[in-house]
Amino acid sequence: MKRNVCIVVAAATALAVSVGCDPGDEPAPEEIDEQFSSEYEEFRLTAIAGPFEHPWAVQPLGEDRWLVTERPGRLVLVEDGGDQIREIDGLPEVRADGQGGMLDVAVHPEFDEQPWVYLTYSKPEDGGETATALSRGRLQGEALEDVEELFVQNNSFSSGTHYGSRIAWNEDGQLLMSIGDRGDPLQAQQLDDHTGTILRLEADGSVPEDNPFVDDDEALDEIYAYGLRNVQGMVVDPDIGQIWVTDHGPRGGDEINLIEAGENYGWPLVTLGLDYGTEEMPDYAEGRRMEGVVEPVHEFLPTHAPSGLALVGGEQFGAWQGNLLAGGLRAQRIRRVVIDEYDGDYEVFHEEELLLQQIGRIRDVAEGPDGSLYVVNDAENGQLFRIGAP
Amino acid sequence: MKRNVCIVVAAATALAVSVGCDPGDEPAPEEIDEQFSSEYEEFRLTAIAGPFEHPWAVQPLGEDRWLVTERPGRLVLVEDGGDQIREIDGLPEVRADGQGGMLDVAVHPEFDEQPWVYLTYSKPEDGGETATALSRGRLQGEALEDVEELFVQNNSFSSGTHYGSRIAWNEDGQLLMSIGDRGDPLQAQQLDDHTGTILRLEADGSVPEDNPFVDDDEALDEIYAYGLRNVQGMVVDPDIGQIWVTDHGPRGGDEINLIEAGENYGWPLVTLGLDYGTEEMPDYAEGRRMEGVVEPVHEFLPTHAPSGLALVGGEQFGAWQGNLLAGGLRAQRIRRVVIDEYDGDYEVFHEEELLLQQIGRIRDVAEGPDGSLYVVNDAENGQLFRIGAP
Repeated sequence: MKRNVCIVVAAATALAVSVGCDPGDEPAPEEIDEQFSSEYEEFRLTAIAGPFEHPWAVQPLGEDRWLVTERPGRLVLVEDGGDQIREIDGLPEVRADGQGGMLDVAVHPEFDEQPWVYLTYSKPEDGGETATALSRGRLQGEALEDVEELFVQNNSFSSGTHYGSRIAWNEDGQLLMSIGDRGDPLQAQQLDDHTGTILRLEADGSVPEDNPFVDDDEALDEIYAYGLRNVQGMVVDPDIGQIWVTDHGPRGGDEINLIEAGENYGWPLVTLGLDYGTEEMPDYAEGRRMEGVVEPVHEFLPTHAPSGLALVGGEQFGAWQGNLLAGGLRAQRIRRVVIDEYDGDYEVFHEEELLLQQIGRIRDVAEGPDGSLYVVNDAENGQLFRIGAP
Repeated sequence: MKRNVCIVVAAATALAVSVGCDPGDEPAPEEIDEQFSSEYEEFRLTAIAGPFEHPWAVQPLGEDRWLVTERPGRLVLVEDGGDQIREIDGLPEVRADGQGGMLDVAVHPEFDEQPWVYLTYSKPEDGGETATALSRGRLQGEALEDVEELFVQNNSFSSGTHYGSRIAWNEDGQLLMSIGDRGDPLQAQQLDDHTGTILRLEADGSVPEDNPFVDDDEALDEIYAYGLRNVQGMVVDPDIGQIWVTDHGPRGGDEINLIEAGENYGWPLVTLGLDYGTEEMPDYAEGRRMEGVVEPVHEFLPTHAPSGLALVGGEQFGAWQGNLLAGGLRAQRIRRVVIDEYDGDYEVFHEEELLLQQIGRIRDVAEGPDGSLYVVNDAENGQLFRIGAP
């Protein structure tokens, strides 16, 4: 499985190319290096590495190194500004099926001293089923070592949908991880099932003593919040610890939620989403609001199909500081979302579309240490892009 | 000024053509005849007539006749499925400047018996200023006869912006008309000034006795509602008389409002819009909500730049019945908006994008008697399009 190849993708002198915009028209893995204007910032979009087979996540390791997962089951290390791509050995076994496979990648908050790489993926279980799982291993050269499985959800499914699996770190160095509903919506309301939740774990996989349900014998200790459908975007504000997620709903039910300990986000009883066939509220839904269910801070309309989520923290794009950047699959764009407090609640003040139909389906968005933003697109021949200085 | 030409535009066998999608890339006036899929309906987009110079409005007169205004100052009659285009004589004088010129066109609700054509336009006033005005004339052959000026706003402006001027008929056969703020936002709060309002008039231009401010000596009798910035989309539900408008806000402040007699819609004191330069709330704005100000039913995000508005009433697109179709200028798309009652209030349940970047800036959307939809795009070489059966 080793792919000892170095692919030169982006020459410094690469010319801008025009990219087709038909929704079904995936851009070729070409040398994209193009300048864009937006409402308050200019930026340059540069393809820095590829092709990747359905890349799912990008984790910057510095200004010039990135880890990228490929959904069929690979983790690759991109170096030298994109010129070197090396496949990493020693990964846990994955069953790639439908939306499942090798999914998110994150590194320990003190990666320089503790070079742990965390991976989420669809783990093979009995009877052809899969469960969303979390493992970590130390990155040593081109391999993971001391690999240990930290968590496997307590239920497995034959469906190939809604794995969730996004990872984020909170300000206390604890790991947050999402698990989707695996196509079994009502399970998201069951506290004895990890499906449809956000989990909180210590960096070694143990359960924090103050997790909200540790004293509830009928609930699983790892659960931090529940009632979610398929959270593929999660980011923590490093200053104040707020946990922002994007939950990928059924048609029109895409949400931004602010996650708080022990809360129920309502899926599938409460949703704005519509049945794909009838344009009615789905059968299992009971309304748009419900006592005891936290309302979303925002509902994306039209349908966005949110994937990875970043929070702009750096100085490079000063006008975007504090904004969320929500990747969109079906929508083929990034939505910049300006959220602020008003009358004691968080509300969306503004949204802007970035990269509309420029690079196809957006799968992940992440900020690098220099304030540049990194994006992977969901395609057979996906690429790693930088949104950087113009 | 007569343009005695017949232009054959759409051959029945016209082939689909691909249209550029760069936001700055206006489609050529070509033979567009292309099938589209959307969430719940299939449809065919056909260019039926053109080119038109910045067409502003389309008024279907039957299944095979349309009136179209061209902003520089023309009204044209399109017949024979688009093969015949005749310029209409006898129009009121117009000063075309910036966003102003010949603007909306509508016909009397009983047009077959009373062939009055109503036009809104920027009327030349002293000192190079203009005022939004309303005239009507009887359509006789290729001319308007018995032309009479029914209304001129009581203030004139040198700016070339925010004329409003959309016309709609209510269920009592009264005429509603919007007037924009002409770039002087605070005037929209002044009831002694027609700027920033919706007016209600009888079909002959007289003021209905029960208009909300007729007993207020300090308010103008024509005003029906106020506190609006630039309503370019207005439609009345023929069954229940609800007046839906789209108000074109500053960046991010585009609204859908349900207009009720005597109400204040808040502009410019209350807006979600942002200053184009600073991304802050504009100086004159005081907040997002205010006592005594009606909240919008919906705020379009990202920025839509709404123009013409239609309400789907016919059977042809059954899945869209009761939905609003809001044309967008900058957004270069139509947003299909599903509004329904929930907990006693109107809320948006769903939105869908149609014709995203397919025909450039959308200026008007109207439903024809057969349930087909008609669209004009804002371009030097604009066209009249039909959204019809696939």
